[in-house]
Amino acid sequence: MKVAVIGYGTVGSGVVEVLMKNHDTIVCRNSLEELELKTILDIRDFPSDPNADKFTKDFNDILNDSEIGVVVETMGGVHPAYEFTSQLLSKGKSVVTSNKELVAQKGYELLLLAKENNANYMFEASVGGGIPIIRPINNCLSANEIIEIAGILNGTTNYILTRMIESGASLDEALNEAQKKGYAEKDPTADIEGIDAGRKICILADLAFGKHIYPDQVYTCGIRDITLEDVEFVKSFGGVIKLIGSAKKLNDGRICVQVRPSVILDKSQLATTSGVFNAILVRGNALGDAVFYGRGAGKLPTASAVVADVIDCVRNYGRTKMIPWAKNERDFVADNFLLPSRFYVRAYNVNDGSLAELERAIGGIKVLERNNQRSDEFAFVTGEICERDLRQKLGNIESVEIKSLIPVTDY
Amino acid sequence: MKVAVIGYGTVGSGVVEVLMKNHDTIVCRNSLEELELKTILDIRDFPSDPNADKFTKDFNDILNDSEIGVVVETMGGVHPAYEFTSQLLSKGKSVVTSNKELVAQKGYELLLLAKENNANYMFEASVGGGIPIIRPINNCLSANEIIEIAGILNGTTNYILTRMIESGASLDEALNEAQKKGYAEKDPTADIEGIDAGRKICILADLAFGKHIYPDQVYTCGIRDITLEDVEFVKSFGGVIKLIGSAKKLNDGRICVQVRPSVILDKSQLATTSGVFNAILVRGNALGDAVFYGRGAGKLPTASAVVADVIDCVRNYGRTKMIPWAKNERDFVADNFLLPSRFYVRAYNVNDGSLAELERAIGGIKVLERNNQRSDEFAFVTGEICERDLRQKLGNIESVEIKSLIPVTDY
Repeated sequence: MKVAVIGYGTVGSGVVEVLMKNHDTIVCRNSLEELELKTILDIRDFPSDPNADKFTKDFNDILNDSEIGVVVETMGGVHPAYEFTSQLLSKGKSVVTSNKELVAQKGYELLLLAKENNANYMFEASVGGGIPIIRPINNCLSANEIIEIAGILNGTTNYILTRMIESGASLDEALNEAQKKGYAEKDPTADIEGIDAGRKICILADLAFGKHIYPDQVYTCGIRDITLEDVEFVKSFGGVIKLIGSAKKLNDGRICVQVRPSVILDKSQLATTSGVFNAILVRGNALGDAVFYGRGAGKLPTASAVVADVIDCVRNYGRTKMIPWAKNERDFVADNFLLPSRFYVRAYNVNDGSLAELERAIGGIKVLERNNQRSDEFAFVTGEICERDLRQKLGNIESVEIKSLIPVTDY
Repeated sequence: MKVAVIGYGTVGSGVVEVLMKNHDTIVCRNSLEELELKTILDIRDFPSDPNADKFTKDFNDILNDSEIGVVVETMGGVHPAYEFTSQLLSKGKSVVTSNKELVAQKGYELLLLAKENNANYMFEASVGGGIPIIRPINNCLSANEIIEIAGILNGTTNYILTRMIESGASLDEALNEAQKKGYAEKDPTADIEGIDAGRKICILADLAFGKHIYPDQVYTCGIRDITLEDVEFVKSFGGVIKLIGSAKKLNDGRICVQVRPSVILDKSQLATTSGVFNAILVRGNALGDAVFYGRGAGKLPTASAVVADVIDCVRNYGRTKMIPWAKNERDFVADNFLLPSRFYVRAYNVNDGSLAELERAIGGIKVLERNNQRSDEFAFVTGEICERDLRQKLGNIESVEIKSLIPVTDY
C-alpha cells in the first residue's frame, strides 16, 4: 500500500519520520505486505529534505494516483482540508488526520462519505496527541453506556496552570515561559480561551454519545481570569485548578458539554497530570472510571497516533471500520447552567452583613483561607447546586463582587 | 449473532448482566444486527436465575450449535478451558476470555489456531480488568517500537500496599482487611507472591515484543517481605513501594521480564494509583509514555472488557483480527540481574566500620532516614548499577545483613 502526506509541518514531517524510522517494526508487527510513502504535498520547497524527490505542489498528483490508498492530512484548518478530504474519500481513498478543527466541524459528513465509498476517515491524533483515546472509546468501551467523558485536553493551558500551582508564577509569566519553550503560540488565543479544548471535547462527545455536536454548542470559558489567589484557596481545599473539557449525559438523555476551569481534588489522576501532558477520563456504566494519560501534543507522539491510523486503514482497506455518528440535533445539548455541582466561589467586598446574608442564602458552605488574604475577600465551596440558582442567590446579595466561580468535579 | 458463556462465576454472570442491561446501547452504537445470549454452560444449577432456561451442562450443546458464533470462556484455569477453547476455535467459533492463566500458557497456540480457522481469540479482560490495554497495544501503538511496558497489574497487592502507605497498617493487617472486603482470596498466594501479575506481564510482553514468554521465565518476587520500615524510608525519598510487573527491551533485542516490589517516585501516575486500581505504562519510541488507568478487577468492569471483545468478534466474524505473536525462544529473555537501575537498600547490623566500607564499595549513595530508626539500621539509594554487581559488593561487607533491596524506577 502506498501513502501520501498533505502538509509537511510539524506533524506531517513527524509522520514521515515515524514511517521511515519504524518501517520494519511496523510492517512486521502488523503483518503488512508493504507500507511505502510515495508523495508529499506542500506549497513550500524542501530541496534538502531526504525525501525531496517525493514532493509535489499539485493535489491532483495524489488524487489521481491509483497506487495511493491512504492519505494523511496534516495541513490543519477547515479549508481547503475539507475539500481535499472530500475528494479523496469520494475516490475511495482512506484519509487520516490530526486536524481537530475539521473533524469537529465536518466529522459527521466526512465519516458518512467514507462509509459510502467503503473507505475510512480516522482521526486518533485529533484528540490527546499520542494518547490512544478515539479507538478505545469506539472499540474497547463499546459494551458500556458512557455516562461522562472529561479531560485535560490542552497542553498549553495545562502547562501554564501547572506553573502557577507549582512555582507561583502569574498567568502572564507562565504564558510567557510557555511561549519561550514553544508550548504556546505567539497568538495563544485558541488555547487560552478554551477553543482548542472545545473542538476536542466535541469529537469525544460525538463518539461517546453518538450525535454530532458543533463547537458553537459548547459552553466555553478559558483560563484568562484564573489568579494565584484562586490557586491558593483551592490548594487549601486539597485541589488544583485545571482546564477541563467535559461532556455529561443527563437523565433525560441530553448532553451537557463545556470547557472551563474546574477544581480537581488532589487524589484524582487528572490532578497529577502536569505540564504539557493530557489525560482523559471516561466513565462507563459497567467500567466505572478509566483514565488515559500521555503526551497531548508534540511531533512524534502525534505522528505515532497518525501512523497507527494509517496502519489500521491499510488493514481495513475497502472496508469501513469507523462507525459514523448521527447528525446534529440542536436540542441534544442541554444548558450547563442547570447541571448540579459543587462550586468554588471567591468574592470581594464582603463584610459581616453580606457574609451573614451569603451564608443564609446558600447554606452548607465550606469557608476557605489563604495567606495574606484581603480583609474583604471571602472564598468558599458550596454543596451541590446548579449554577443558575447559585448565581441568582449571589446576585441578590448587595455589593458583593464575585471574582471567581468554578465547578468542583468528582473525577 | 448468538453468544454462549462458559463458566457462570463472577465474571461470567457479569458478562450476562452487561449483555442484558446494555443490549440496546451495544446493538445501536456498534451497528450490529443482533446480539443474543443463547446458552450458558456451568456444572452448577441456577434454578432461580432469570436466564435459567439457557443453562446446559453439556459442552457439546455449544460446540455443535451452528448458530453460536462467539463463545465467552470465563471458567478460569488451564484445563479444561484449553481443550474447550481449542475445539471451539477448530470449528471456526471465536472465543473471548478473561482467563489470564490460559492465555499466558497457551496464547501462542490458540492465536495460531484461531488464525487457521478464520476465527478470533480475544482476551482484553485478561490484563487490567476493564482497562483497555490489549487492543491499544495491538492497534493504537502499532506505529511504535515499544521500549518498555510496566504496571500495577494486581489490585489485591496494590490495596495492601496502599493501606500500608496511607494508614500504617502492617502487611498482615492489610491482607486481613483485603480478605474481609473480598479483595483478596482466602488463599492469597497467587496475588501476594506475584504469580497473578506474572501471568499478566507475560501477556503484555507477548503483545509488545512479539514472542511468547512463559510465566516460568519471569523473575517473580511478591510483597511478602515488604515492611513498614521500607514504606517509611521510601516515603522520605519521595516515593512509594508498588508491586510492578515490567518487560523492558535491551539494546541487544532481548527482553527483561520481572514482577517485583519497586520504588515509584511520587510524581508518577503509577504512584497515585491507589487501592484496587491498576495502571499500565507503555513507553514507545515515538509516543513517549502513555498510562492506562482503571479498575483492574471486579464483576462489571471485567465484563465490560469481555463484552467489548464479543462485539469485536461479531464485527470481524470470519476474519482474524488479532495478529499471533511468534513462538517462545528461551534465550529471548535476558537475566534481569544485569539490568542497570538505581536500588533502595535497607540493612541491619551496620556499624561505623561497615558503613565506611559500604560507602567505599558502592559510592554515590543517598542516605535515608526514618523516625524511630534502629541504631544499627541503615537505608540508602544507590546510583545506577546492575543487581548482580550490587549484591556482590554488599556480600563482601562482613556482618551487614541486607533486609531489602528494591529497584527504583524511572516511570
